[in-house]
Amino acid sequence: MSDASDDILAATYRALCEHGYADLTMQRIADRSDRSKAALHYHYDTKEDLLQAFLDDLLAQFESQLDCEATDPGKRLDQFVEAVFDPAREGGQRFPVALLEIKAQAPYHQAYRDRLAAVDERMREIVSDAVRDGVEADQFASRDPDVVARFVVTLISGAHAREVGLGEEPAATRSLVEEYLDETLDRDGGSD
Amino acid sequence: MSDASDDILAATYRALCEHGYADLTMQRIADRSDRSKAALHYHYDTKEDLLQAFLDDLLAQFESQLDCEATDPGKRLDQFVEAVFDPAREGGQRFPVALLEIKAQAPYHQAYRDRLAAVDERMREIVSDAVRDGVEADQFASRDPDVVARFVVTLISGAHAREVGLGEEPAATRSLVEEYLDETLDRDGGSD
Repeated sequence: MSDASDDILAATYRALCEHGYADLTMQRIADRSDRSKAALHYHYDTKEDLLQAFLDDLLAQFESQLDCEATDPGKRLDQFVEAVFDPAREGGQRFPVALLEIKAQAPYHQAYRDRLAAVDERMREIVSDAVRDGVEADQFASRDPDVVARFVVTLISGAHAREVGLGEEPAATRSLVEEYLDETLDRDGGSD
Repeated sequence: MSDASDDILAATYRALCEHGYADLTMQRIADRSDRSKAALHYHYDTKEDLLQAFLDDLLAQFESQLDCEATDPGKRLDQFVEAVFDPAREGGQRFPVALLEIKAQAPYHQAYRDRLAAVDERMREIVSDAVRDGVEADQFASRDPDVVARFVVTLISGAHAREVGLGEEPAATRSLVEEYLDETLDRDGGSD
């Protein structure tokens, strides 16, 4: 990704945290960057185009938090839970709020829905691959990897909605996810 | 509740389905009722006041779908799942969208957050009471009722966010909830 894109997407993140999705404008994003609104439009035609690139970048950032070298299935699950529930990000609770607004807009923007679906599919893939490998290696009890993955991503979706709608700490769901994985896969807590 | 309130809250539901939360105005609610905007303001000072009453009514409607006469814990759980995943309501997928918008606004409206928390607390109470009774009657395996309840409501929050954000059928989560309850409580499917 070019420096310009990096800078614009970082400004988008800051503007989303400050104004939310509904009040996000190209001008407000420009105000949070070193670039003019015209310069933004040179890279992205519309706010929707920019948001698509932003959501793609979010997925890339999530991937970068996962250590592809890890081979132990238990370690991979632990790392996934860590990346989901303790993302290295500034902006506190305001970003989850903006992201929930974007989810609420998804029925009207197929491009958002596609990106959100890509993130969800990637999360399900990481969990189901790790479960499959762990079951094959006799480290985990025999379970359907896709069912386990679906449980985990649904709890994660719930954690997000509850953080915003109820002000509930995501840690409350994190411990549910860990307990579920330990019990379902018959493993003892984290593997490190 | 008075006829006027009934009529206004029904108009609010229709206006929310049509315009979403962000574009909801007292005028638009009046347009969907037989009353003037001034008449609406006679009952509710602001859009926020009206929305509070609307969320209170939503909880009351949910309660009314549950049969308080049922004593069998398994039947009560089945009935709860039915009320959550198959609510008798018009408007299709548009109401869940509006409700997710309201959840995204909750950090800025304590009154919304209080109402959403009341619905959630009531749901947790129904599940944990049924689990507690079923464990005491030796119908269910011994589990912590509060943990089971938390698991269930988090899956339900997830189902809502996924229905809107990903276009996923709530039935996908419904079967997860049923599977979770059956396995965790060691019971065989529904009890009827």
